[in-house]
Amino acid sequence: MTRVLNFSAGPSQLPLTVVQKAAAQLLEYGTSGQSVMEMSHRSSTFLEIVRETERRLRSLLQIPQNYRVLFLQGGASLQFSMVPMNLLKPKGKAGIIHTGTWTKKAIEECRKFGECVVLASGEADHFHSIPKDVIVPQDLDYVYLCENNTIIGTKYKTLPECGHVPLVADCSSCILSEPMDVSRYGLIFAGAQKNMGIAGLTVVIVRDDLIEERPELPSMMSYAVQVKHESMFNTPPTFAIYMLGLVLEWIETEFQDLKALQSYNQRKVALLYDYLDSSALFKNEVKKEDRSMMNVPFMTDDPQLDAKFIAYAQAEGLVNLKGHRSVGGMRASIYNGMPMEGVEKLVEVMKRFEEAQAIC
Amino acid sequence: MTRVLNFSAGPSQLPLTVVQKAAAQLLEYGTSGQSVMEMSHRSSTFLEIVRETERRLRSLLQIPQNYRVLFLQGGASLQFSMVPMNLLKPKGKAGIIHTGTWTKKAIEECRKFGECVVLASGEADHFHSIPKDVIVPQDLDYVYLCENNTIIGTKYKTLPECGHVPLVADCSSCILSEPMDVSRYGLIFAGAQKNMGIAGLTVVIVRDDLIEERPELPSMMSYAVQVKHESMFNTPPTFAIYMLGLVLEWIETEFQDLKALQSYNQRKVALLYDYLDSSALFKNEVKKEDRSMMNVPFMTDDPQLDAKFIAYAQAEGLVNLKGHRSVGGMRASIYNGMPMEGVEKLVEVMKRFEEAQAIC
Repeated sequence: MTRVLNFSAGPSQLPLTVVQKAAAQLLEYGTSGQSVMEMSHRSSTFLEIVRETERRLRSLLQIPQNYRVLFLQGGASLQFSMVPMNLLKPKGKAGIIHTGTWTKKAIEECRKFGECVVLASGEADHFHSIPKDVIVPQDLDYVYLCENNTIIGTKYKTLPECGHVPLVADCSSCILSEPMDVSRYGLIFAGAQKNMGIAGLTVVIVRDDLIEERPELPSMMSYAVQVKHESMFNTPPTFAIYMLGLVLEWIETEFQDLKALQSYNQRKVALLYDYLDSSALFKNEVKKEDRSMMNVPFMTDDPQLDAKFIAYAQAEGLVNLKGHRSVGGMRASIYNGMPMEGVEKLVEVMKRFEEAQAIC
Repeated sequence: MTRVLNFSAGPSQLPLTVVQKAAAQLLEYGTSGQSVMEMSHRSSTFLEIVRETERRLRSLLQIPQNYRVLFLQGGASLQFSMVPMNLLKPKGKAGIIHTGTWTKKAIEECRKFGECVVLASGEADHFHSIPKDVIVPQDLDYVYLCENNTIIGTKYKTLPECGHVPLVADCSSCILSEPMDVSRYGLIFAGAQKNMGIAGLTVVIVRDDLIEERPELPSMMSYAVQVKHESMFNTPPTFAIYMLGLVLEWIETEFQDLKALQSYNQRKVALLYDYLDSSALFKNEVKKEDRSMMNVPFMTDDPQLDAKFIAYAQAEGLVNLKGHRSVGGMRASIYNGMPMEGVEKLVEVMKRFEEAQAIC
């Protein structure tokens, strides 16, 4: 087979050794006589997979003991609702820092359940920068932000000072790409299909004191119910949890810790930004200090030339480089599963394309 | 490898050829250069997988044109809430036929959103039979039932006459086991991890006229939103959808249609019921006319002997025969993925155990 380089924003390229291990184990996990896909979620073998997956996640992210880890379904979009449904007090309010499409959706969902104050917005700047020095009123139930914007390619490098107000962060496209100080957050959530595995699993990390019984909510939407049942109020997405375990094992084996992985990711993305900053053809419009390490949008000044480049790259085995439909241009998502060689190849292809254009 | 016979109630045994095909394609799907797990859900290759999966499902179940098919997450338990949230009118009411654990949960979730009338209950009979001749008041927003009770092992053989009231059915443990007249239902839902594939996918089949915009609901919980976005309001559980496609392809290849599959399933389960009815040791307590074709609980008169049998069977490679914790005893779930040889082996092991007990 010729493996493509997949720059999709998610679902996205997995480490090859992870896919190979999954393939090798697919017919039989260990000596269980069955596929992980077939296992009862209450069997001792599967429960051991869950325990080991949570242990690895806790170890890599250094999750403090007063946080629970949940393996849920529904993606970040369901969390846009679950967060206000569980965290908004009666007549309370949330504060959101607006940085693009995903916070817009989060605001819309939040307002179905209560007041949502936009504390700061990057809209005037087309979201090309992250709002700084945000003042957080101390009467909020929580402050919400999207830590890495997958579409625009921005990333918080420092978190806002929230005082006593719990910080809730959508970390779907940056979790596990670098170390994070979990103790600064009240709640973190992330879809798995970018840096952690495959679609169909959502990881929630929530601080004990934010878990409140909400008997009026659908049981499946209550953090308290999910915590009480250790993510098994009903059948969890078993195979996706197993895949997360394989990805975590790969990180431990290849990098040992997230500091080393961060260093690798920084070197990967520097290749691309350095080239973009030197290119006469391609540009990235994000404020340098707010650039994402995971998602790098870029474009020429001509949409037709963009389309030509996308086709050119595709012919070279570089797929899913088309930018999000809301912004156009190109986007290279270079999550943990994208190796250095993939980014090197991308830069090489971009250079060659640029040289060919210069000759035309 | 020695493949166990897995009688789990779900996740459950898949047809071996389905697991083999998934394993063969896991590193590369077709000539795509990537695993299905890695594919963008908006890529043409994956969209073709979704279209083909829906086409096969529509063909096998003969779903009429005025029904939409949704590929969602959250399992039946999330549907327990989504159904009333979407189908209950303001100050309206639902009617439920109570047949055990799963309708109890559905009643509890429904009552968070409105009135829920229990039209009939099998409780006095320990749910060993399905209530018959239920009168359906015509002022209900919908009638709800669980068509096959996974825990007790009961199954509706005829549906209640609902008049103009839409019928909503939880078909998690019987869908695709036999033909069904979809036009008799307003809405059908089913978790995939029993007869259709793996955990993390929920199939909803809903009639057009029941799809109402409900802007007050979380977007992910609105059938109208999910229909409008063709199950891609956000990233769907891509790999689980692919697995459903493989199971549907297997049914088409092995049986052509659900009538032939039903006939096979009937012959499979008859082996087990015939033996149970002749056994002096084991018994099944369900009223004969209401017996399930998919889940067969059985027990001796002695819980210690039950435990001994479960261990004896396990040593023979027959796993997950323990009954649900709420009822004890044993349970053999024999979904589509369990071959005739598996049930033959089970009956053989039961006979041997019974003979050994008689000698003791």
